[in-house]
Formats: sequence, C-alpha cells, structure tokens
Amino acid sequence: MPLVRFSVSIDQELVEAFDSLVEAQGYANRSEAIRDAMRSRLVRQEWEKGDEVAGVITLLYDHHRHGVSEALTEIQHHALAEVISATHVHVDEDNCLEFVAVRGEARAIEKLADRMISLKGVKHGALTATSTGKKLR
Amino acid sequence: MPLVRFSVSIDQELVEAFDSLVEAQGYANRSEAIRDAMRSRLVRQEWEKGDEVAGVITLLYDHHRHGVSEALTEIQHHALAEVISATHVHVDEDNCLEFVAVRGEARAIEKLADRMISLKGVKHGALTATSTGKKLR
Amino acid sequence: MPLVRFSVSIDQELVEAFDSLVEAQGYANRSEAIRDAMRSRLVRQEWEKGDEVAGVITLLYDHHRHGVSEALTEIQHHALAEVISATHVHVDEDNCLEFVAVRGEARAIEKLADRMISLKGVKHGALTATSTGKKLR
Amino acid sequence: MPLVRFSVSIDQELVEAFDSLVEAQGYANRSEAIRDAMRSRLVRQEWEKGDEVAGVITLLYDHHRHGVSEALTEIQHHALAEVISATHVHVDEDNCLEFVAVRGEARAIEKLADRMISLKGVKHGALTATSTGKKLR
Repeated sequence: MPLVRFSVSIDQELVEAFDSLVEAQGYANRSEAIRDAMRSRLVRQEWEKGDEVAGVITLLYDHHRHGVSEALTEIQHHALAEVISATHVHVDEDNCLEFVAVRGEARAIEKLADRMISLKGVKHGALTATSTGKKLR
Repeated sequence: MPLVRFSVSIDQELVEAFDSLVEAQGYANRSEAIRDAMRSRLVRQEWEKGDEVAGVITLLYDHHRHGVSEALTEIQHHALAEVISATHVHVDEDNCLEFVAVRGEARAIEKLADRMISLKGVKHGALTATSTGKKLR
Repeated sequence: MPLVRFSVSIDQELVEAFDSLVEAQGYANRSEAIRDAMRSRLVRQEWEKGDEVAGVITLLYDHHRHGVSEALTEIQHHALAEVISATHVHVDEDNCLEFVAVRGEARAIEKLADRMISLKGVKHGALTATSTGKKLR
Repeated sequence: MPLVRFSVSIDQELVEAFDSLVEAQGYANRSEAIRDAMRSRLVRQEWEKGDEVAGVITLLYDHHRHGVSEALTEIQHHALAEVISATHVHVDEDNCLEFVAVRGEARAIEKLADRMISLKGVKHGALTATSTGKKLR
C-alpha cells in the first residue's frame, strides 16, 4: 500500500515533551506514536458515527450464581451475527472472567453489551471499543 | 454469604427516572442496577489505589506487518506472572484482534499494556479495567 | 417533593467495601453515595439519548496567538442559544483558561465544542457533560 | 519560540481517513489536528504523573438544599492555594451550576473534587482535566 510523506511544523517545546512521552511508553519512534494518536481519534469517530466496529465485552461473574452462565450463553446464541468468540478464564473458585469478541454496527454492539452487563450475577462488565481495522492502516 | 438489608430514601422523581433506565437497559430490578453502580465505583477505586486487579488488553494489528505477532508473543512470555490467556480472532485477510487476559498490580498491568499498544504494527489498543472479583460480591 | 423509601438486599462484603469508599471520598452516608451513583448513570443516559443537557467547554490557549480570542468570541456570539456564560482565567503571562457554560441539545453542544477545540491556537480543550438538573432530583 | 520541521511517512489510507476527520471537526489543517492529538496525550500524562495541572470542577446543585452553597464556599476558602475562581450559573429556579477553576498537584486537585462532589445536595459533579499550558506549546 502506498505511503504518503508529508512534513509538520511543531514548536520545539511540544516536540521535546512528546519525545519524552514516546520514550516513556516504549514507542519505536515519534512517527509511530503520531500514527497511533491519529488512529485513536478515528476509532472514536467510527463508534460515534455508528459504523461497523469491533469490540470486546468483558464480564466478571460468579459461576455459582444460578443461571448466569446459561443466560450468557443464551444471549450469545441469539446474537450470532455479532458474536465472534468467547474466552472463559477461571480467576478463582468463584470468579470467572468472560471476554466476548464482537463485531457489527456500533449501536447494536452497545445494546448487546448492555443486556449482558445488566444480567443478575454479572458483577462487573465493560465494553471496549476498537475497530475492524478495515479503514485503519 | 450473609445479606444485609437496609433502606434508602430517595426523591420520587429520581427513583422514577432511574426506574426507566433500569427497564431500558434490561436489569431484572432496581436493586440489581444499584448493586451494579456500587460495584463500578469499587472497580475504579481498585485501579486508582493500585490493588491487584484484572483486565483485558485488546490489540488490533495487521499480521502481515513483519515481526508484530512475534513481538507480542515475546512480551507475553516475559510477563507470565500477569498474562492469563490470549485469544486470537481473524477479522479479515489482514486484520487480527488479540485479547490478552491479565491480572496483577494495577500499575504493572498498565505498563504491560503500554508496551504492547506502542508496538509498531499494532494499529489500535486498549486496556479494559475490571476486577478479580475477590472483594466484589 | 415526595420521598420514596425502599429497601435493598446486598451481600455483606459488597456493603462493607462500599462503606469504606463512602468514608474515603467523604460522603455523609451510604444513601448519599448511592443517590450519586444513580444520578451519574442518568446524566450519561441524557447525553446518549441527545436530550437537553448542560456542560462546560474548557479551553486552554495562548492569548499571544493571533486571532484566537477573537475567533472564540465570534463562535460564541453565533451560538447565543447555547452559550450561558464564559469565564476567563489568566494562568500565566501566556496561557489562558476559558470555561464556557453551555446548555442545549447534546449533539449541538458536541458540535460547538468540536469547533472551539479545533481552533488554531487552542492548545487543549475538553467538553464536560452534566445535566440541567430538571429530571434529576 | 523555535519551530521544528520534520516529516512523517503514513499509509495513504490512514492519511485519507484522518483528513476527512480533520474536515468534519473543522480543523484548519492536518498539522493542527496532529498537534492537538499530541497535546491530548501529554495532558493525560501530566495527570498520571501527578504534575502541576489545571482543571475545572463542575457542580450541579439545588440551591434550596439547606447548607450546600455555604459548604461549597467553606471548602473553597480552605483550598485557596488551589482554587482560582468560581463561576455560578442559574439554570432555573432550583438548579445551579458552579464551575470552580483549579490549579495544583494532580492528586490534591482530585481530592478537592471528591470532597465537593460528595457533598449532600450536589446532584452531579465532574472533574475536567487540563493543563497549565507551561510545558505545552
């Protein structure tokens, strides 16, 4: 894929401050950190516009709570178009973490996450917004 | 585990507004939504205090980019104490999503996420904060 | 305005964890912290639904940059329906902070904030979401 | 202040996607949007490191609630080192918005915000993070 090369003028002090952040966070170089900042803005925009996006629904629950894992499975089977995969992690004797990889229209993904997170027995839940990467080089 | 029953006094209008949110988000009842709101605050506090936490590092990358998947594997192998599991999803011919389940001290988890997200070839990354659930009934 | 009194059943451990947060943050009591958590969710919902909301647009800029304060004033005068007031703080010889209190439809407020934040000369900007308080007792 | 001019190589597709965002948000040009993205990261870092920062504490309250405005004034007078100014907006017959401009060490600012937001009578509160602009050109 073709590269575009362009130049930017930036106050010396801003460059110096940014370079120390680049080093602290372990970026290979300044350009990589700039590309990252550009892509973060684009991911936010994809979600705001309601485009096709990707994400993860993270769920913490106690598997002893009656019915919670069945309910989670049930919801996922009715959302086959959005759900890509689910990973289950045993945190300790009681607690489970489940990561559901999803993909679809931003608003549909948000609704699906709301339904799972609000389930009785789910202690904590979160929706992580990322992108399918198609428009994101 | 023992239950505590206590009563709360709340302005009628606040209760009504909250009840319509409870219904819109699909909660079983008002109590469940209140417990959820309480637990969300506690998860935030665990991260701020630097306690032992759990989380997911979400990474979007192009597997054609030379060296990126090797670098991600390498970093994870040097962080065995924190990394629980990794799930890999093929989004399309180019794009991969990787979800790394992690657990450990909040600051160590943040550093680990920074290192992976700043890798060249990683298009977008995010750290999702949740809890091990131990102090969270 | 009438009060509603209802009772909630919560696991003892969750109550204890929440009570220590209540104390650490300086709440008068548990009920007040619960009401706060309920209201925070409602404010988020008002913004998501695009209701009439209130907010603050915070702008950091260097007043030596030619044209920036004129441009900010100009934008505000074309948004009289939304802008309530502006407070200007002199941080040091170069830097100014301006807080623009706004009120209106959520999407219109977001657009207005975008326009001001993207102005040349504005170093940093943020939109803070709150409520007009009408539906929020 | 001296300018640094450097060039960046970016995939054409990323540049195109970013350029349409630049236009949609009303930036003068691509460079200005890139500088903004760089500065946002730096502001986040200043808060994480606990540096000297600036911010706004936004408070929504009902002035009929006995004691709330006195309590807010009292807290501010005991935090003279941090509080720069306060702006009061009358939203309607009941609701007030107060914007407290603050400046100081990040952790002290967070504590001050917690105390005000947790006050009985304060319906909603938020802390907006910005910078003093000193290291931010």
